[in-house]
Amino acid sequence: MACASRIASALRRIRCANSTFQRVSLIRPAPQIAQRRWQTTQEATTSASQEANHEDDLPAGAPSAKTIKFTSESYPELKRDPKFAEITKEHVTFFKDLLGSDSAVIDGLTKDAGEDIEPFNSDWMRKYRGHTKLVVKPGSTEEVSKVLKYCNDNMLAVVPQGGNTGLVGGSVPVFDEIVINLSRMNNIRFFDEVSGVLVADAGVILEVADNYLAEKSHIFPLDLGAKGSCQIGGNVATNAGGLRLLRYGSMHGNILGIEAVLPDGTIVDDLSKLRKNNTGYDIKQLFIGGEGTIGIITAISILCPQRSPAMNVAYFGLESFEKVQQAFREAKNQLSEILSAFELMDGRTQKLLHKANGKKLPLEGDHPFYCLIETSGSNTEHDSAKLEAFLEYVMGEEIVSDGVLAQDQTQMLNLWSCREGIPEVLGHWGGVYKYDLSIPISELYSLVEEMRERLTSAGLVGDSDKHPVVDVVGYGHMGDSNLHLNIPTRRFDKEVEKAIEPFVYEWVAKRNGSISAEHGLGIAKKAFIGYSRSDTMIKLMKQIKNLYDPNGIMNPYKYI
Amino acid sequence: MACASRIASALRRIRCANSTFQRVSLIRPAPQIAQRRWQTTQEATTSASQEANHEDDLPAGAPSAKTIKFTSESYPELKRDPKFAEITKEHVTFFKDLLGSDSAVIDGLTKDAGEDIEPFNSDWMRKYRGHTKLVVKPGSTEEVSKVLKYCNDNMLAVVPQGGNTGLVGGSVPVFDEIVINLSRMNNIRFFDEVSGVLVADAGVILEVADNYLAEKSHIFPLDLGAKGSCQIGGNVATNAGGLRLLRYGSMHGNILGIEAVLPDGTIVDDLSKLRKNNTGYDIKQLFIGGEGTIGIITAISILCPQRSPAMNVAYFGLESFEKVQQAFREAKNQLSEILSAFELMDGRTQKLLHKANGKKLPLEGDHPFYCLIETSGSNTEHDSAKLEAFLEYVMGEEIVSDGVLAQDQTQMLNLWSCREGIPEVLGHWGGVYKYDLSIPISELYSLVEEMRERLTSAGLVGDSDKHPVVDVVGYGHMGDSNLHLNIPTRRFDKEVEKAIEPFVYEWVAKRNGSISAEHGLGIAKKAFIGYSRSDTMIKLMKQIKNLYDPNGIMNPYKYI
Repeated sequence: MACASRIASALRRIRCANSTFQRVSLIRPAPQIAQRRWQTTQEATTSASQEANHEDDLPAGAPSAKTIKFTSESYPELKRDPKFAEITKEHVTFFKDLLGSDSAVIDGLTKDAGEDIEPFNSDWMRKYRGHTKLVVKPGSTEEVSKVLKYCNDNMLAVVPQGGNTGLVGGSVPVFDEIVINLSRMNNIRFFDEVSGVLVADAGVILEVADNYLAEKSHIFPLDLGAKGSCQIGGNVATNAGGLRLLRYGSMHGNILGIEAVLPDGTIVDDLSKLRKNNTGYDIKQLFIGGEGTIGIITAISILCPQRSPAMNVAYFGLESFEKVQQAFREAKNQLSEILSAFELMDGRTQKLLHKANGKKLPLEGDHPFYCLIETSGSNTEHDSAKLEAFLEYVMGEEIVSDGVLAQDQTQMLNLWSCREGIPEVLGHWGGVYKYDLSIPISELYSLVEEMRERLTSAGLVGDSDKHPVVDVVGYGHMGDSNLHLNIPTRRFDKEVEKAIEPFVYEWVAKRNGSISAEHGLGIAKKAFIGYSRSDTMIKLMKQIKNLYDPNGIMNPYKYI
Repeated sequence: MACASRIASALRRIRCANSTFQRVSLIRPAPQIAQRRWQTTQEATTSASQEANHEDDLPAGAPSAKTIKFTSESYPELKRDPKFAEITKEHVTFFKDLLGSDSAVIDGLTKDAGEDIEPFNSDWMRKYRGHTKLVVKPGSTEEVSKVLKYCNDNMLAVVPQGGNTGLVGGSVPVFDEIVINLSRMNNIRFFDEVSGVLVADAGVILEVADNYLAEKSHIFPLDLGAKGSCQIGGNVATNAGGLRLLRYGSMHGNILGIEAVLPDGTIVDDLSKLRKNNTGYDIKQLFIGGEGTIGIITAISILCPQRSPAMNVAYFGLESFEKVQQAFREAKNQLSEILSAFELMDGRTQKLLHKANGKKLPLEGDHPFYCLIETSGSNTEHDSAKLEAFLEYVMGEEIVSDGVLAQDQTQMLNLWSCREGIPEVLGHWGGVYKYDLSIPISELYSLVEEMRERLTSAGLVGDSDKHPVVDVVGYGHMGDSNLHLNIPTRRFDKEVEKAIEPFVYEWVAKRNGSISAEHGLGIAKKAFIGYSRSDTMIKLMKQIKNLYDPNGIMNPYKYI
């Protein structure tokens, strides 16, 4: 068979390949392209419609933000809470005296801070924009403590901000909240090569941490597209998922310790370097995914795995979602401890990749589904042998119809681009309605099919300009049951929106899924939490919020 | 060299070995022996002195407990809190009516429940014994809710109890607290072979869960000696560590969801089956390691890995702790994804094994340190090759002086018994002062040396009967920086105790270690939490306790 011989030839190639890659980050596409997408979509009004994928998109540096619509206009139901004080000259003077350095305070109150302050007011997606007049950049945990205590005593609302690469509007102000930016706290405090424990300030950029670890043959157990800008404190505060979760697990398991500051200035000194410490409630867990609503993370301690010297990437075509599930089961079985990614892309995403930018796809012919598998292990020869056996099995059993294996770094890059190029290309026609969902794996793709049918039978989908919707597609982290449902459109349209929402949330809720798998709540999902959490859980969460932040100054108007 | 040829011969043997083992539990020693140890040590009065190792020891079935000293006598400083109501006939009637079945209530109030109730009053170590007159065994979450609400409304103190295999007295009453035993809630509710997600009642016995998973080629990501008796709800409530932590990580990462009941009867319905769900504070984490002080876990959802078909065990002698660290680094490097255990035993433990029960040790000659390495992976041939390369390296570099590789299951058992036989043998001379500590890996063994020197220079250590201390030894989970400091003695002696405590806690505190790595606080460590946690952290913990259990009815006199 043609496809079998192709795999056989790929297998022969991989056997003679002698280049291995030390760094996972090398196999990502260049970041520049992704930024452009959002410039066409800034008119969106639905909270969920513009959501992007944490690991698929990369933040712009500091775009001129003055054209971005204010969040207060996009969400007219949000009103400034009058309990918060307005910033005065005295407040600004306090912060300037406290932080000592001119560059540590951006003062838009006593002068026009213009372009200096706007990047802190708006997000990289150009979707959210606040009205802050003050940004403070403390340089130490003690300074964070003094800043927060002062704000709490004076009823000044604040927004903790890391790299500002979030996707749900969590890291920018809505009104005049003071931005507390962590970028000046950027020291790596400790690393131990035997235990793999890293302790670092919250403001260390993820890629800086990972590069530091690479020199010591370790990796940061989190990887995402925004790694060049996002900060590890923000990663922890948003419980970022990303591409290494399948292999290395979540922050809740990897974070060993946290140093954080509560609104009243209390320093939570739980920066343990120990893998085991069963002495009381694990309070630090509340800060993981707490999105800066109960305190500010100032440092983390994290367990970092050894870096894998061997890496392989393969790309397959499959005929049904049932076969995708079979392939996943086999990959878990046979690749087991070396499996580091199992990504799903439907055939439509791959066609759109080709249609929009003429990309030559790795496989000839059409398949309804494609998967990308990555292995990383300690021994190239063993990993290749395992992959070979896996490929022989899935080809022999006709689980997989066709496939290719990367032979070198360029080929790996090319295969990864079939997955990572999707988010960008979906914006090609105008805008995208994007949803980041956790769904039990057996039903993961049914939502895409149902949504496609729903919009098609409503006459909204088509090839011509009179149809607002271009297509309904799905891709995502199969290994984590995490689907990205995307609906590329020619224009934003209330009728489309009504056909999608709340249907999509109800569908997910019926299956006990999550309406936000890895992006968090922020402003975007605040209103929809009830689809993923019971009233009891929401009540318990509000209790926690009130316990730690009774004045409600921390990141208001968001989360719950 | 003799030792090199021995390894070479061992390597040849493993290459021709064709038996692999599906089940890790098969390679443990038989449980009966461990029980005896505690019968010689029941007179101990120090909280820490009798602590045993969660995965080293196994619970007795139901020993006659009437000879065990009451905790209220061992800890005369503990007084019954008069705020709690005393149990009346009306209370008992309520529970009998509610639970419907005779076997669901053990009533020691209106009749003499004698031997029926004592096993619930005392722990398997025969160290703690309470005065309860009532045991209730709810059969559903709703029943747990009604029981707890009634107790809370009537100020009746309670003790949640699973398999009652804990090591710090957390699961038995001190005074007349009602025992709420979860053993009737023992259904496996759900398992999905694709995602590996298991949902089960809290009262399912760990081994039952693991056997169930074995049939589906998965494992429970926790393994410990008490697996035949302990319940998974208790495992989660105590954040049990055990032998698989090095490979599969902690409960905080593996637990996906929890169903629990708060004292006021609220059912915390957070039984998510999703690997990713970023919608609010991760409140379930507070129940992991909460030791039943804020609520009762009634069910868990947990991510279970694939079962490894290949397994190898090796045993080495090394000349210094520096070399042990080098070997660990190399094992992490070269065995990487297949390393599933790296256990440390000092030479003295091995000598005592030989001395006490005449065990023939696997290696000839004396070495100051020994390590046991276990690998588990998906491919026997690959794993053997990796281990072989590792062995060649550590032998060639003289990191390891001598070593053997198990060729079959009997040999694996034999090697494991050199590690797992230690706790039992240390009780041979009378009693053991035992400490379970987390210490930064570079200093892990220094404490043993310092303690030995300290007790020796105080004239307490020697071969003759006039010396109370037999030896000072160390072993433990090197891979988790978890040391078991053990001091076998001929008799319990106040002078020895004073020489050990608080020195040991101060030593650990100075290095930011943990005074309880995996056993929890219970009664045993309640007084010592300040050595591992700051005043701030303790204050925050008390806040959490008060938030969820304002009446303080949950597991009183313990934890914090």
